[in-house]
Amino acid sequence: MSLLVTGSIGIDTVRTPHGVSEDCIGGSAIYFSMSASFFAPVRFVGVVGCDCPFDIPEIFAGRNVDLAGLETRQTSKTFRWAGTYMETMDDRVTDRLELNVLAEHPPAVPKAYADSQFVFLANTAPKLQIELLDQIKNPAFVAADTMNCWITDYLDDLKQLLERVHCLIINAEEAKLLAQEFSLIKAAEKILAMGPPCVIIKKGESGALMCLDDGSMFVLPAYPTATVKDPTGAGDSFAGGFMGYLAETGKKDLGTLKTAVAYGTVVASFTIADFSLEGLTAVTRADIDERLEAFRQFTSF
Amino acid sequence: MSLLVTGSIGIDTVRTPHGVSEDCIGGSAIYFSMSASFFAPVRFVGVVGCDCPFDIPEIFAGRNVDLAGLETRQTSKTFRWAGTYMETMDDRVTDRLELNVLAEHPPAVPKAYADSQFVFLANTAPKLQIELLDQIKNPAFVAADTMNCWITDYLDDLKQLLERVHCLIINAEEAKLLAQEFSLIKAAEKILAMGPPCVIIKKGESGALMCLDDGSMFVLPAYPTATVKDPTGAGDSFAGGFMGYLAETGKKDLGTLKTAVAYGTVVASFTIADFSLEGLTAVTRADIDERLEAFRQFTSF
Repeated sequence: MSLLVTGSIGIDTVRTPHGVSEDCIGGSAIYFSMSASFFAPVRFVGVVGCDCPFDIPEIFAGRNVDLAGLETRQTSKTFRWAGTYMETMDDRVTDRLELNVLAEHPPAVPKAYADSQFVFLANTAPKLQIELLDQIKNPAFVAADTMNCWITDYLDDLKQLLERVHCLIINAEEAKLLAQEFSLIKAAEKILAMGPPCVIIKKGESGALMCLDDGSMFVLPAYPTATVKDPTGAGDSFAGGFMGYLAETGKKDLGTLKTAVAYGTVVASFTIADFSLEGLTAVTRADIDERLEAFRQFTSF
Repeated sequence: MSLLVTGSIGIDTVRTPHGVSEDCIGGSAIYFSMSASFFAPVRFVGVVGCDCPFDIPEIFAGRNVDLAGLETRQTSKTFRWAGTYMETMDDRVTDRLELNVLAEHPPAVPKAYADSQFVFLANTAPKLQIELLDQIKNPAFVAADTMNCWITDYLDDLKQLLERVHCLIINAEEAKLLAQEFSLIKAAEKILAMGPPCVIIKKGESGALMCLDDGSMFVLPAYPTATVKDPTGAGDSFAGGFMGYLAETGKKDLGTLKTAVAYGTVVASFTIADFSLEGLTAVTRADIDERLEAFRQFTSF
């Protein structure tokens, strides 16, 4: 079924103990689309400035990504982010952040996308996420991401958004901040009470926790990998694998949601194995399915 | 099959955000034995001083724990530990540590225990662990725990021990220290190369990772619990559930080891739900089996 993503396109510079990747392509919509396209056709909504050095149609060549929602704003500059990961890879600092075009009005959702059934609203101001969501007629399953600055400074907007989405996909630290609660299980319960019937808390190298409003729960470790070269994009790749599998099956029952979390985890494990999109572009759906089966073996008892 | 544990008996004082438990019973052999006794008869080897306020036979009354290896040393004092857990429960400080009788020679292993098949050497000086192990004739499966001070200051002794055990059960931070490696997978590989064919890395609220020398791997999240009252004894309870299940089945193939890790995880989840032994003494084997099945549901896809 149709899957739409709204999110960022970025010019990233990433430093990790394994090297530096300068002015490479990044952004939530990019990682999400590359990941989701292994499973279902993706409708892409995002905006760059006139300085964008990337040939985005070329990047997605041969993949099922519809770029009718890609806008190039001639009077603006592209979003830029630079960050450095510490030696242990479990912490990072932002060296540079230029919102540029992301600080302006969001790109319009093409009319042809208004019937999208599965929708992912990547992290941005909750007011903009609502504005984007308003352009979709009757979606079957909407997931959203958010981050600490919106929780701290735009909580009322965020709460309005939470009443309208089916799933919040959020980092552990942000979940604790949003719920004002140290226990992740209790935090998930409090977030469920804010509206979404499904909450997924991403715990980085510790895996993910999914809680549903019917009391169902699902926990998975991260896929065990010896080498993490660049964790950038892991969360959006997770969301891409998760939403991609839901859109592929057209279902949202517990069993499908569980497998979708496992697919999201596996896709993210490919992303972090290399810089930028390189970990993802090298793999096939067969590689992903093979790793999913290995993951099932690694975690079943 | 027979299961022997050598470890500490302590007078603990624990402060957590949920309250204070003063001069309560603790120690690795105590948590291990209580946990393992749900699965198999336990042979207990440990020592207290003349000041020990606990009626240990009474504590284990009705449980399958043989206390022939419990020594009361009249000229010595009992091991004491006091610690405080931070508000987030993921860190603790030691307020007081008196090794007392633990700094002396270890208790003798009763001759009747020399034929023990499954053996757990709880954390103590590696030289003492070897001395204890020397008293067992031909064990089928020996697991050991260790901690940072032995890794830092008695590495040669520890390496001698590692050549003689089948399994090292170790915390994530200690595994990184022992292997001089940030990646847990790589750390596990380096520890396997030191001798033991099985390494289990405990990651606290992030679960556990088991690696075998044949390349097999198993990862599990922690059992999802809303309330953690007191994490003390979680690691030794894990080891007790793990070794107890192995001794119950008498097997050590991959499938059995995986289920044993799951049982260890579940038993630990009962321990941390209350202070001291209270979380464990309230449960039955049926409760443990029920939670194991729930855990299977929570983690399978």
